[in-house]
Amino acid sequence: MAQQHRAQSTRQELIRSAAEVFHRCGYADSSITTISSRAAVSNGALHFHFKSKRALGEAVEAAAAHKLLCLTGPVSLRHPDPLRHLVDTSEALAREIKGDAVLRGGFSLCDDAGWHGGVDLWEQWHDWVHLMLTVARDRGGLAPDVDLADAGSAITAAVAGFAVLSRKQPRASSPRAVSGFWRLMLPRLAGDGTRRQAAADRTAPMVWPAEGSPEQCWELEGACCVA
Amino acid sequence: MAQQHRAQSTRQELIRSAAEVFHRCGYADSSITTISSRAAVSNGALHFHFKSKRALGEAVEAAAAHKLLCLTGPVSLRHPDPLRHLVDTSEALAREIKGDAVLRGGFSLCDDAGWHGGVDLWEQWHDWVHLMLTVARDRGGLAPDVDLADAGSAITAAVAGFAVLSRKQPRASSPRAVSGFWRLMLPRLAGDGTRRQAAADRTAPMVWPAEGSPEQCWELEGACCVA
Repeated sequence: MAQQHRAQSTRQELIRSAAEVFHRCGYADSSITTISSRAAVSNGALHFHFKSKRALGEAVEAAAAHKLLCLTGPVSLRHPDPLRHLVDTSEALAREIKGDAVLRGGFSLCDDAGWHGGVDLWEQWHDWVHLMLTVARDRGGLAPDVDLADAGSAITAAVAGFAVLSRKQPRASSPRAVSGFWRLMLPRLAGDGTRRQAAADRTAPMVWPAEGSPEQCWELEGACCVA
Repeated sequence: MAQQHRAQSTRQELIRSAAEVFHRCGYADSSITTISSRAAVSNGALHFHFKSKRALGEAVEAAAAHKLLCLTGPVSLRHPDPLRHLVDTSEALAREIKGDAVLRGGFSLCDDAGWHGGVDLWEQWHDWVHLMLTVARDRGGLAPDVDLADAGSAITAAVAGFAVLSRKQPRASSPRAVSGFWRLMLPRLAGDGTRRQAAADRTAPMVWPAEGSPEQCWELEGACCVA
């Protein structure tokens, strides 16, 4: 049992190490030796877990997709303010891309011309953003002249752009920049001044209604996160 | 003279070929042989012009920076509508990144973890966006509650994000997406409904006043473009 736990821990450390090296050097320039050294394991131990650099890339990608799913979580039709949830989640994503090596490495792979993977994290993010905007519209929380496709693309592109720009400018704060984007965009999306004020008021505690029956919620399967 | 012209033409073709290969494969995975084959010249001829792959990367970067300078052009304080000029130029940039191999390759290098160059094209673009926003504010064309830093960062990030996202989704139209971003953002920046309408009205012909004395203009040195 202890051996199984150790093997699992080594595997996680290798995924984390690979994510850091892919992010810093790009996939093509990342070497197996650099990754194993950073994880403090031998090349042999690395090959016990991953048969190739490509297998490591796929593991980083899958782990990042799972983390993104945890971050966005289940989408509830009963959320009191879908737009605010969208703002909070995009700010959380910017913080996590900055602070979490696996998520950062996964998004770096996604934008890497030298990597051809099977997961598009930005598409996954875009689909969730579009879903939240649809919920906001259905609940009357979106200005009537806002085009869903325009808004979904703009929010996805802004978060992607801040992530890419902060890679070569480590002093640039991507989370702060995302908040600045929302200071401009939120009043435009919400339209109504009262609603806008309520959504922008970060001091008000978030009060969630009790969850209803499963029919009242859209739940993404497997959207649970092990801390 | 004919020989000099031919040498210049070969050099341009090599820069264009390198830009295409860097964009498609990433800098680290791009080989000198692929670049010379694509330009239909020998490896020897390539080395006559560029002593290394790095020298080719620097040439692509410099050519893209020059093209970006041509696109943004001189900034005139007498421009009748600085916000509209900003919209038009960012849409033109998205079109050029899609259609011009050198500009596209230069921006790809800029976002490439395997390339460490001396030029930051996104910073160059951000500085120009910030300058245009400042001109718009000075002329009373910006809503009073718009923060210049927020707006400059949001516009830069959106254009960068669309460029990055369209790399792996060739069917995604970056220029169309940039226009969608502006449909949302322009009314928010302009604030005033009348001005917003005038700025959004793409059918009205652009009428430029006669240029004034050099003192009345901010002109970027060398901002002329050889077609």
